[in-house]
Amino acid sequence: MDGNFNKNEHLAGRNSLRLDLQPIYNLAEICHKSGITHAILSPGSRCAPLVLAFSRHPGIQCLSIPDERSAAFIALGIAQHIKKPVVLICTSGSAAYNYAPAIAEAYFRQVPLLVLTADRPPEWVGQLDGQTIWQDQLYGKHVRFSASAPVDLTHQDARWHLYRIMNEAIRIAQGEPGGPSHLNIPFREPFYPESDSDTFFESDVPYHSVSPSKSRLEDNTRSMLQEKWSQASRKMILTGQSAPDDTLTAILKRASSEHHIPVAGDIISNIHPIPGAITRADVFLNREHPDLDNFHPDLLVTFGLSLLSKNLKNFFRERPAAEHWHIQAEGEVADPLKSITRIIRCEPEDFLSEMLDTESPGNFERQKQENFFQIWNIENGNSANKLESFFASGDHFGEFEVVFETLKHLPGNSNLHLANSMAVRYANYCGLNDHPSGVVVYSNRGACGIDGCTSTAVGSAIADPSRLNILITGDVGFFYDRNAFWHKYTLPNLRVVLLNNHGGGIFRMIQGPSQLAELEDFFETEQRLNAKNLCDEFGFEHLRCDKRSKLKHFIEELMIPDSRTKILEVETESEQNKNILVDFKKLFR
Amino acid sequence: MDGNFNKNEHLAGRNSLRLDLQPIYNLAEICHKSGITHAILSPGSRCAPLVLAFSRHPGIQCLSIPDERSAAFIALGIAQHIKKPVVLICTSGSAAYNYAPAIAEAYFRQVPLLVLTADRPPEWVGQLDGQTIWQDQLYGKHVRFSASAPVDLTHQDARWHLYRIMNEAIRIAQGEPGGPSHLNIPFREPFYPESDSDTFFESDVPYHSVSPSKSRLEDNTRSMLQEKWSQASRKMILTGQSAPDDTLTAILKRASSEHHIPVAGDIISNIHPIPGAITRADVFLNREHPDLDNFHPDLLVTFGLSLLSKNLKNFFRERPAAEHWHIQAEGEVADPLKSITRIIRCEPEDFLSEMLDTESPGNFERQKQENFFQIWNIENGNSANKLESFFASGDHFGEFEVVFETLKHLPGNSNLHLANSMAVRYANYCGLNDHPSGVVVYSNRGACGIDGCTSTAVGSAIADPSRLNILITGDVGFFYDRNAFWHKYTLPNLRVVLLNNHGGGIFRMIQGPSQLAELEDFFETEQRLNAKNLCDEFGFEHLRCDKRSKLKHFIEELMIPDSRTKILEVETESEQNKNILVDFKKLFR
Repeated sequence: MDGNFNKNEHLAGRNSLRLDLQPIYNLAEICHKSGITHAILSPGSRCAPLVLAFSRHPGIQCLSIPDERSAAFIALGIAQHIKKPVVLICTSGSAAYNYAPAIAEAYFRQVPLLVLTADRPPEWVGQLDGQTIWQDQLYGKHVRFSASAPVDLTHQDARWHLYRIMNEAIRIAQGEPGGPSHLNIPFREPFYPESDSDTFFESDVPYHSVSPSKSRLEDNTRSMLQEKWSQASRKMILTGQSAPDDTLTAILKRASSEHHIPVAGDIISNIHPIPGAITRADVFLNREHPDLDNFHPDLLVTFGLSLLSKNLKNFFRERPAAEHWHIQAEGEVADPLKSITRIIRCEPEDFLSEMLDTESPGNFERQKQENFFQIWNIENGNSANKLESFFASGDHFGEFEVVFETLKHLPGNSNLHLANSMAVRYANYCGLNDHPSGVVVYSNRGACGIDGCTSTAVGSAIADPSRLNILITGDVGFFYDRNAFWHKYTLPNLRVVLLNNHGGGIFRMIQGPSQLAELEDFFETEQRLNAKNLCDEFGFEHLRCDKRSKLKHFIEELMIPDSRTKILEVETESEQNKNILVDFKKLFR
Repeated sequence: MDGNFNKNEHLAGRNSLRLDLQPIYNLAEICHKSGITHAILSPGSRCAPLVLAFSRHPGIQCLSIPDERSAAFIALGIAQHIKKPVVLICTSGSAAYNYAPAIAEAYFRQVPLLVLTADRPPEWVGQLDGQTIWQDQLYGKHVRFSASAPVDLTHQDARWHLYRIMNEAIRIAQGEPGGPSHLNIPFREPFYPESDSDTFFESDVPYHSVSPSKSRLEDNTRSMLQEKWSQASRKMILTGQSAPDDTLTAILKRASSEHHIPVAGDIISNIHPIPGAITRADVFLNREHPDLDNFHPDLLVTFGLSLLSKNLKNFFRERPAAEHWHIQAEGEVADPLKSITRIIRCEPEDFLSEMLDTESPGNFERQKQENFFQIWNIENGNSANKLESFFASGDHFGEFEVVFETLKHLPGNSNLHLANSMAVRYANYCGLNDHPSGVVVYSNRGACGIDGCTSTAVGSAIADPSRLNILITGDVGFFYDRNAFWHKYTLPNLRVVLLNNHGGGIFRMIQGPSQLAELEDFFETEQRLNAKNLCDEFGFEHLRCDKRSKLKHFIEELMIPDSRTKILEVETESEQNKNILVDFKKLFR
């Protein structure tokens, strides 16, 4: 560390390097050493040193996105796919506040982001200077780490401080649980380098390599759990929102196929590669089901993030299992089912592996477990059949069927993005079993906003050009976030299925507002746009399906590879959509 | 207060009223009693009780705006015009965070907003529940008041608590200085009333009428200031951003015309109704001016909010007046000129009135003051002449001239909205003297973002249908905030002059980025849109001027009354715009 100042003096002879900017340039090098590959920049002046640092670093791919709200969701979309922090860089002022919705989503989804906000120097904050707000700690509890960098980097300790908080921000963003980290970086004028100056990255900048570890249960704890596990004969696994994980999927397959443990979850749990996974509980586990007690486990094991299905949540809240073990290696724990009895601090795949490996129940218990599995399995299968026959009848052309058909036509190795609020619910009613392999489901179920669903899908499309990305979205979320497309990057691997009912159709579905005089004016809030103009603006192909007989054809056309984004728009009536859903739900009463 | 519970029991017999919602309904009544007339609602379910309270209150006009970012700027646009708090209501989750950019702007501009965010009940925050973030204290230092309401309103003290914080939120939003107040209001299910229930407002809900007062100087302080005032012979008044105020304008007219005190400011200071006001210092007071010392006052008096002109700021920072009195009755004080010597705690109009009324300088001092006035006055007049002749030459067709001509064609009693970043600067170079009376200038110069300039103008147009609203904006800000138009309200009194250079043209104007290889990719960030599609989408008239010879004609056509919004788009080249500005500035060197 002592060598830094001398090194900078040495560098000063070369190409009129700006000594005060060198530590800022080095931040890109720390990111690069940490494995960071992507940065999203939004235009601004105060952030110029950061823009230069990252755009000139050969190891980091930079994109420029003008609307910071979209920029941050695009970063989220990339980060959730590449599973590494994505850097966000913006100028000072309200620009930074436009990141906030995506930061909240990333926080609750534990997606790593590294937010670098340029700031005015502290002496000018609160002095009515331009583009100056209170940026220190701007994101409150929605970041896992937040620090303000020193404004004067002359002293070697100040440079050490900058490098130190940068390393810590990256480590925490990737920690367990990961999430957004925020560095606020003030710059005094002048902060532009000479036009002819090189940008140099000091390769020996202080960098903290992190050696990861794993939480393992202690022997006697494990033995105790194994004993309880063996004694339980109605065991069940329920997974919240999770990214696909091959190791975990393999062990869940064993749990389901060999040990007859129902593995349930929502479409966002990404358990569809598991044969026999229970993915339709949202439709059959409703309060009107006559035999709900039959589905009641004696040991419930949960992991993952949020649950989508209201019926699943209600079932377990109203019928807490005698034992509810929540498996989570680190971080704060939530109890959305109000029933946790034990928190187990290790990774779910390690826990399950240890339980399954040593399981030796008696024949009687094994039979009971198998019976219990069959109860879930049969109902799940019946639901799939009812779904098929419901749409086979042909009387139900509406947005639900559009989702149903889209899911049937998903190509292998594609990403399915489900927007809030009705799109993800329709898809969850359908489930994803028996689909081509390699489909990954994403949805902004952290803060559950409609504000960045399209941008998130755009980020995912940018992250991996080899995969097709299919976004299913309603019209309100789609037009809300139309700046997702407002940049110069083409997205040939993006497809949008736009369910346009010209308003917030969900409010007609839920009981409260549907019976109020204010339904149309203040809940649905009619909006008149369709996607035609938007497609013209951005050079997208616009497919418009207005007949049930053409739906499959259009969906097939949508999935065909192309050099540009395609949008399939289906305009429907909210009242009709509501009636269809009511009819569908009647099948399960 | 004790009577409330009994009253509620009495009400309970009528139309199955929901007792637990009655205090929420009463919030609308408190607002009404406080003089609040407007609420902006964004669709959501959790906020239903608030939506019902405000939309059913006969004294409050409600608008539904789907994008909360735009909704909040529209509220700001209304509030800055009607000078009363505008209510914002949104559902829980990231919706509330989308208000943040406008809230920051309102904070620094001291515009009253009353932000009511619906929330999940506290027990569900952090439990992976849908649309749930950490909403308590969400806006940090950018609100003047923030409180969370009790979730259970059964106890009369809880209801008193709710009414108490509502009254306080309104009082503080309107205080000196005013700004945004935030109430976070959690709701447990069920939060919808029965469909057939009436909504009733209890007229005797606790309401705090506020008796305003005024800060007056003490006698000996006033005498001391009057003596110093009389002794100064190069007095000058500099006004930051201010709303028009007839009383203040009248006294400033006296100061300028009778007392020969230069009254300087930016176009956003709204001093253009004052004959002889110095509004072009931004062009002539540059560092290359050979006689800058001649402009140096011995007593500088300031008030108002931010200053736009970099040259004005640099001049006073580099040449602090011997005495710099800042007049501000209440609130935290900023010192953007780095030169305050005295803070005077009263209203500027009262202070100036007391100084002018008793002023009795000797002939010599009076002559010196008049000479000083002439120095400023002549240079200001010369600048106006140079501006006129610059464009008369005809070689300079670009966005600067579009702004120049637009300002010349402003109708009386109109609102001029100047977007960040170049539009407001061009307009400030032009100034607004000698224009028809009643023009009011607005600009988001609090946080100075481009994120809500259009929405703010839309709010202003909604607030007063009798006034024409002319927005001058660049393309980046315009498309950034295009959701300003995404709602069902027509805006026949809105005109947009769109300076489309297809990117952030300002970055070519400022010295740093213009010389960097990254200029086009990461600073200007080319965007390809024009407004044609947008006009088609929203049913606006699209005027497109591509020739200098047609400019006046188009601007005249733009100003003609119509039943729909009109947009005049002028597409220009950034490099040409830059050269024009360079040529213009040469006139002042």
